[in-house]
Amino acid sequence: APTGTLYLVPAPLDFGCDSQIALQDSLPAATLQTAARLTHWICENAKSTRAYLKRVDALHPLAAPLQQQQITELPRAVHKKGDHGDKGSASWDARPLLAAALAGQDMGLVSEAGMPAVADPGSSVVRAAHDLGIPVVPLVGPVSLLLALAASGLNGQSFAFVGYLPQDGTERTQRIKELESTALRTGQTQLF
Amino acid sequence: APTGTLYLVPAPLDFGCDSQIALQDSLPAATLQTAARLTHWICENAKSTRAYLKRVDALHPLAAPLQQQQITELPRAVHKKGDHGDKGSASWDARPLLAAALAGQDMGLVSEAGMPAVADPGSSVVRAAHDLGIPVVPLVGPVSLLLALAASGLNGQSFAFVGYLPQDGTERTQRIKELESTALRTGQTQLF
Repeated sequence: APTGTLYLVPAPLDFGCDSQIALQDSLPAATLQTAARLTHWICENAKSTRAYLKRVDALHPLAAPLQQQQITELPRAVHKKGDHGDKGSASWDARPLLAAALAGQDMGLVSEAGMPAVADPGSSVVRAAHDLGIPVVPLVGPVSLLLALAASGLNGQSFAFVGYLPQDGTERTQRIKELESTALRTGQTQLF
Repeated sequence: APTGTLYLVPAPLDFGCDSQIALQDSLPAATLQTAARLTHWICENAKSTRAYLKRVDALHPLAAPLQQQQITELPRAVHKKGDHGDKGSASWDARPLLAAALAGQDMGLVSEAGMPAVADPGSSVVRAAHDLGIPVVPLVGPVSLLLALAASGLNGQSFAFVGYLPQDGTERTQRIKELESTALRTGQTQLF
């Protein structure tokens, strides 16, 4: 039997903000229609996924009521440490999360804000889909770091996203100096 | 008098393809509505800008007929060499292109495909807008390299876009080896 498809579904960027923008301001109609059609989800946070789907429902009625949808959270360790161990090695096996896709269901991967698997957990699920022969389709939506890069006027033809800065003050200062030195030496914009 | 705003207007990714997708598949309604409202453009290529605006017009009628719109191309040198000289220094002054915005007109910056100023010329225009106190608003649309990154399953929490590979075979092989070494050493995904 053919497998389902894994859709990477972007979410709006107003998560946690006091006021919310209209979904159609930052998401194409095709992205919203696909989100409305899916009933099986892998997500960073189930509560924010339900809140997002409620907003989708107001524009494009959901294929199944929220309480009948299967919404599975990524394990907490993946939130905290990301989907990659040191030096890019995979840190866990996400294949069990894709059982419904193997059985023929289309599934959605969604973050709290922006594009899943970019500056956010989710790449382990995408790798698992590739391992299992499940097609992966990324949908268009907002990516905060790219909007910031474009609007900054900094070099957009060579740039790096380097994740979070250290919390410790001394380490943070050291890291910022390193990034500044790399940017000055190479001309590569450093995003964090 | 207040200045206009510079909007960064993403274009669909089907430039040069045999078949075209529907604009609403990859662009939010708000992006298309803003594109329809603007009448002053700075672009990579005037012909592809007109073709894009014709497609917008079919969904959201343009505020002015195409032949009455002011469409200015970036100089050819900016296409070829990018907007940055070596080590990130600006290579030319784009401020004269923003005369209409200084006079109060909203303007659009647009590429042949994807997000202007990201892996495409345009950052010099954004810097000029900042110099002149002209507000810059990036709109949501497709960014090919981010869609590819998300769908790849590679590390999306540390990645770099490094531009084009050299055309010469020997230099290209050398560059690929460097990038592979960086990726293996640091775990940073390398996009080109």
